[in-house]
Amino acid sequence: MDLEDLYEFLKIDTTSAKGKGEEGAKFILDYMKDNGIEAELVKHKAINPYIIGEINVNSNKTLLIYNHYDVQPAEPLDKWNTNPFKPVEKDGKIFARGIADDKGSLMARLQAIIELMKERKLKINIKFVYEGVEEIGSPYIEDFLSDYKDRLSSNYVLWEGSGRGPDDSPEIVLGVKGLLYVELRVRTEKDLHSMYAPIVRNPAWELVYFLNTLRTPEGKVNIKGFYDKVKWLSNEEKKYLKGDRKGMEKALGQEVPDDFMIRVVENPTCNIDGINSGYTGEGSKTVISSYAFVKLDFRLVPDQDPIEILDKLNSIIPSNFEIKVLGKVKPYRTSLKSEIAKAIINSAKKVYGEDPTVLPNSPGTGPMEAFARILNNNQIADGVGVDNAGSNIHSFNENIKKEDYFKAKEWMKELLFELENF
Amino acid sequence: MDLEDLYEFLKIDTTSAKGKGEEGAKFILDYMKDNGIEAELVKHKAINPYIIGEINVNSNKTLLIYNHYDVQPAEPLDKWNTNPFKPVEKDGKIFARGIADDKGSLMARLQAIIELMKERKLKINIKFVYEGVEEIGSPYIEDFLSDYKDRLSSNYVLWEGSGRGPDDSPEIVLGVKGLLYVELRVRTEKDLHSMYAPIVRNPAWELVYFLNTLRTPEGKVNIKGFYDKVKWLSNEEKKYLKGDRKGMEKALGQEVPDDFMIRVVENPTCNIDGINSGYTGEGSKTVISSYAFVKLDFRLVPDQDPIEILDKLNSIIPSNFEIKVLGKVKPYRTSLKSEIAKAIINSAKKVYGEDPTVLPNSPGTGPMEAFARILNNNQIADGVGVDNAGSNIHSFNENIKKEDYFKAKEWMKELLFELENF
Repeated sequence: MDLEDLYEFLKIDTTSAKGKGEEGAKFILDYMKDNGIEAELVKHKAINPYIIGEINVNSNKTLLIYNHYDVQPAEPLDKWNTNPFKPVEKDGKIFARGIADDKGSLMARLQAIIELMKERKLKINIKFVYEGVEEIGSPYIEDFLSDYKDRLSSNYVLWEGSGRGPDDSPEIVLGVKGLLYVELRVRTEKDLHSMYAPIVRNPAWELVYFLNTLRTPEGKVNIKGFYDKVKWLSNEEKKYLKGDRKGMEKALGQEVPDDFMIRVVENPTCNIDGINSGYTGEGSKTVISSYAFVKLDFRLVPDQDPIEILDKLNSIIPSNFEIKVLGKVKPYRTSLKSEIAKAIINSAKKVYGEDPTVLPNSPGTGPMEAFARILNNNQIADGVGVDNAGSNIHSFNENIKKEDYFKAKEWMKELLFELENF
Repeated sequence: MDLEDLYEFLKIDTTSAKGKGEEGAKFILDYMKDNGIEAELVKHKAINPYIIGEINVNSNKTLLIYNHYDVQPAEPLDKWNTNPFKPVEKDGKIFARGIADDKGSLMARLQAIIELMKERKLKINIKFVYEGVEEIGSPYIEDFLSDYKDRLSSNYVLWEGSGRGPDDSPEIVLGVKGLLYVELRVRTEKDLHSMYAPIVRNPAWELVYFLNTLRTPEGKVNIKGFYDKVKWLSNEEKKYLKGDRKGMEKALGQEVPDDFMIRVVENPTCNIDGINSGYTGEGSKTVISSYAFVKLDFRLVPDQDPIEILDKLNSIIPSNFEIKVLGKVKPYRTSLKSEIAKAIINSAKKVYGEDPTVLPNSPGTGPMEAFARILNNNQIADGVGVDNAGSNIHSFNENIKKEDYFKAKEWMKELLFELENF
């Protein structure tokens, strides 16, 4: 029965970018209620409702489980080998939009808990929060958490789901990087013929010179105090950083350094996302453009603060540059010594029979810090998911290995047993 | 009668970018023949014919006069106050497409010579060459000059026409800057999520670092040997470099240095015409683009050679950069001590009653060096034109001052008298 219900869920288009989701939310709400879980739809500021649910077994411990029921647009459809909203099993895999991100993990966890509950083996309280707008950037998530923080309070938080890493070992993630995204702009009054180059300003050159001072060719960010609050990884944290160098190089299409896993987790960065000035069409045009801009993202690591980094950046940009802030997210990291970390590592070892890969933080960014701050909870971990490195998340032919769905269910159960024992 | 014939000429649309021109060429051909000048249309490789003409008065001196009868597109038409192909006189000015560049100068010179001829005061031989594709970059000009070099041989060449400079004094130009236009490209295999920034190459950063090494913030080009062949201006040459600083600052929309006239003539440059990489739309996208490029123009001065500069550039660009050459033009400069320079300066003084501005070379680029090399002639000068700093060349509401048309005719005659006397 497991997969039948999952497949019904996958058939419902919940592409939040297209305004869809409510039908999927109702399906899950009914599924929870039908299985004896108290739950309700909460219409808040976002276009799709949240689902809040709870199972109270009178424990003094509560685990909050976060997932999202919305999916990315399936386009381009002609790249799919199957209908993205018609789950298909083939060669031990299941193909469908959302199977890996995040409907599969949502359902595997939920079914595992329902099973435990029915067998009366559920010994700690569970809270559920399912979001319907994660794929459009979780707008209003902080408002929502603030407005519902009492109902969402818990001892531990389980993040949306991480399955197997690139080397096929279970992958656990204990945090996220933060982000500061800015656009820098330089202007003069008008475009000019390039014959005036000996006597006029060129915004593109001014941008190049500033960027050159901002970061070294080795990747070091040249902002005074940029690294002051960086919590460098401990030897213990580095120990769990396994990785598949060949797989990574294949995925990225280029060579990576020996210590690529440490770097990708530990290092904050300054990246050029886009740069533009002047004539960029075919052939030649001799012009000094009146406008140049660059889009930069700074990936931040614990305990860097995007607001502090922005202040430092502001203090060094030339006075004639304009700056527009396009994003600020704080980094977050749960301690490897925390109960949730220990429980999720031990349960992974039991289910998969091998050491997991543990990332102290993801190389990417997410609103984990908002959960920690607003819900006043410093035990947040990701794992207990169904995906793998070949799952094509956000892309076409999204898939998981069928066996990983059942592994995730086992993992969910073992995690709860581990948490019981603290 | 002067202006009537000019206006008929201006009414004919000769926008070479739109494939127009032949009707205008025939009009001028007939005008020359009707006035007793031997002339013919020469259909060569370009879309519009050349006109070659000659007046032989059995002198041992010959002046070749170069003009073009084609014009730039008049668009955007809604910015014009009048119909660009219907000449209108207003407030002492004449408005029409091509009146300043280059139909006005072509006709003023031609009419002056016809008048001298009829009065039997023409004492040196004249050759005419009128081009119909100057505004689309003079394609095949070198082939044409080579194929017709005997018929175009002369002692002096008068370039297309320069009237009054920014300070309203007559402006004489004795050369042009050269150009090397290149596009540099950097690629990796694929676009990547910016979370991989700690371990992968970013083509945009690689371009920034290279550009930073290529030129100093003060404008000095950091290519070894770049300045070796530069002929710095003599004190004599600097003396004639007048200029209108306030006018220049108004025209450019920014402050210029005290020695702006010397710099704009004497300094070779490296200019960013365009730069592009990654996401340049609205808002934020976190990406490491697989592609970055920059378009650069090097304005060269006598006696820099674009091929030598390209070799030097090639020797310093990183091995993973691609380079595409989009343009190579050699600089050219006629000596201030030459007969043509002396004659054009003296005649300007007589007609305008003031010292002219003399630019040893234009800040811009043109095929003057090809004329010098192929026609084996090192006495080429520009002047005897109808335009001024407010003529809106290549733009809307193109105009000249009506009196400057008659001044240019006088100047043409005085120039011929001066040349007679060497």
